[in-house]
Amino acid sequence: MIIALDGMGGDHAPKEIIAGALQSLRAFEDIHIHIYGDEKAMAPFLETHDRLTVIPCSEKIEAEDEPVRAIRRKKDASMVKMAQAVKDGEADACVSAGNTGALMAAGLFIVGRIDGIDRPALSPTLPTLDGKGFVLLDVGANSDAKPAHLGQYAVMGSIYAEKVRGISNPRVGLLNIGTEQGKGNELTKAAFDILSEAPIHFVGNVEARDLLEGVADVVVTDGFTGNMVLKTIEGTAAGFFSMLKGVYGASFKSKLSAVLIKDGLRELKHKMDYTEYGGAGLFGLAAPVIKAHGSSNSNAILNAIRQARTMVQHNVCKTIQDTVREAEKES
Amino acid sequence: MIIALDGMGGDHAPKEIIAGALQSLRAFEDIHIHIYGDEKAMAPFLETHDRLTVIPCSEKIEAEDEPVRAIRRKKDASMVKMAQAVKDGEADACVSAGNTGALMAAGLFIVGRIDGIDRPALSPTLPTLDGKGFVLLDVGANSDAKPAHLGQYAVMGSIYAEKVRGISNPRVGLLNIGTEQGKGNELTKAAFDILSEAPIHFVGNVEARDLLEGVADVVVTDGFTGNMVLKTIEGTAAGFFSMLKGVYGASFKSKLSAVLIKDGLRELKHKMDYTEYGGAGLFGLAAPVIKAHGSSNSNAILNAIRQARTMVQHNVCKTIQDTVREAEKES
Repeated sequence: MIIALDGMGGDHAPKEIIAGALQSLRAFEDIHIHIYGDEKAMAPFLETHDRLTVIPCSEKIEAEDEPVRAIRRKKDASMVKMAQAVKDGEADACVSAGNTGALMAAGLFIVGRIDGIDRPALSPTLPTLDGKGFVLLDVGANSDAKPAHLGQYAVMGSIYAEKVRGISNPRVGLLNIGTEQGKGNELTKAAFDILSEAPIHFVGNVEARDLLEGVADVVVTDGFTGNMVLKTIEGTAAGFFSMLKGVYGASFKSKLSAVLIKDGLRELKHKMDYTEYGGAGLFGLAAPVIKAHGSSNSNAILNAIRQARTMVQHNVCKTIQDTVREAEKES
Repeated sequence: MIIALDGMGGDHAPKEIIAGALQSLRAFEDIHIHIYGDEKAMAPFLETHDRLTVIPCSEKIEAEDEPVRAIRRKKDASMVKMAQAVKDGEADACVSAGNTGALMAAGLFIVGRIDGIDRPALSPTLPTLDGKGFVLLDVGANSDAKPAHLGQYAVMGSIYAEKVRGISNPRVGLLNIGTEQGKGNELTKAAFDILSEAPIHFVGNVEARDLLEGVADVVVTDGFTGNMVLKTIEGTAAGFFSMLKGVYGASFKSKLSAVLIKDGLRELKHKMDYTEYGGAGLFGLAAPVIKAHGSSNSNAILNAIRQARTMVQHNVCKTIQDTVREAEKES
């Protein structure tokens, strides 16, 4: 199995990307990694490894680049060549921590969609209080969605949850503003009916308030709403830690309190650390494409590569294709 | 000034509602309160007060009642008679902690809309890290919205922020999935242009991640998204406190830590306590209608009544009507 890796994407590239690659090669003996990037920039961090190949690239996609234009023009960019390798069958999957919009464009226009899938979905795994986590999709591959797209998100998310996260008969919920059937806006009211007919274990509407309690294993929504929910969780969590810091720093008594609780809080932070759950899969593309978080450290890269490897091992893309074809025949 | 109060709505009615009413009468010498409800249920908690009138009602809107049907059938319900009093000019404003859907129906069908407003908006004030807070609307009066509705929400929210919350030249933001112009779904892309032309201080797109940092004083969105964001904040906050409790309860060391930090955490909880900010106004109705949180204690009721009083004092509804008329003339 060959995994293509963008050596230049992300806040801590190439150092942490390379470190993550080396950790992955030690963890998994059945993978080869092709790392794409600027040889000179990567050299200080590289180690020779018989399952690591370096592919030199002279260009790079920057965080502020306009996505579609960038992947069309910067043909020698690490992200572009990485995606092209997957398209050409030179790699089985790819991972990047770079510009999300550009990776989505590279996925859509270079790797291409699974036959039968209209819209890919950006699909992170979020933490839950019990540590199991849930997949949320779409969180921004597309801002607008039709009811049928939500139906496809549900199928893709369910297959991923089963095959990659090992959850048998994963519960799929439709993110909505109330649990009763008939609730919601035009989109969710129509999507409810579609999900009820889909080849999934549909548990009905789920509310945003209950997500972190693990109310479903897969939660389906349109990209605008999904992005909004994701950013709200991030902002609220950040606000909390910020306020906690303020509370702890306020006096000697509180600083002492902080020392006593340090281990417990660290464990809490670890539990909520989404980098432990891997990256966000771009489901619906012809091969696994994983978006690792921009601030990924080597551990996050390891988990993203682990995710890609599992998707390849379990033939997730082909299963999605077959399931969608089956569903089309029956309808 | 007469404020009509639903004595039977809310988890802690009528006890906390009555207590809140009495606190309000002590705080504000210029108001009369007409409290609506079951005489027998309220009797144990009532005190005689020359500015408190009890209006007996034989029916009650239950939490599980279907809103529109309930307000049409239960004509002697406290919430219905309260709204009718406002409609008939017997009261200047009303406050209820009961069934939100029913209060919205009572507002729409009994109190009625301000001339020129298409859709009322449910508009809570949420906390920010600096304690100033921001108004978010709409959070669920309507699930779907057109761009023009968002324009009206912006105007109403801005007038409220200025006149009631005392913020001069309030910053109005459009909740979106990115800050750059041109971002978003079909609705927000169109709404951006409308808000740019509206008689408000429009600061452009604001992201969900930045809300608690006070990035705007008024944040505009459609009811589905607003509800989603509100519930996500609530769920994330609840999850955090839940996890903190777990961390603190874990060992003797951590219990000691909890004791030391108790005051600081209590202050934190207080800051984040949205009941301190009053209830959610139903903006766009012909008179102030305030939805107090279902779990309101007497302090929350006091703040909701304070909110209603300030809206009456500053003639918010008339200002909204005049502003919308002016804007219509110019367009």
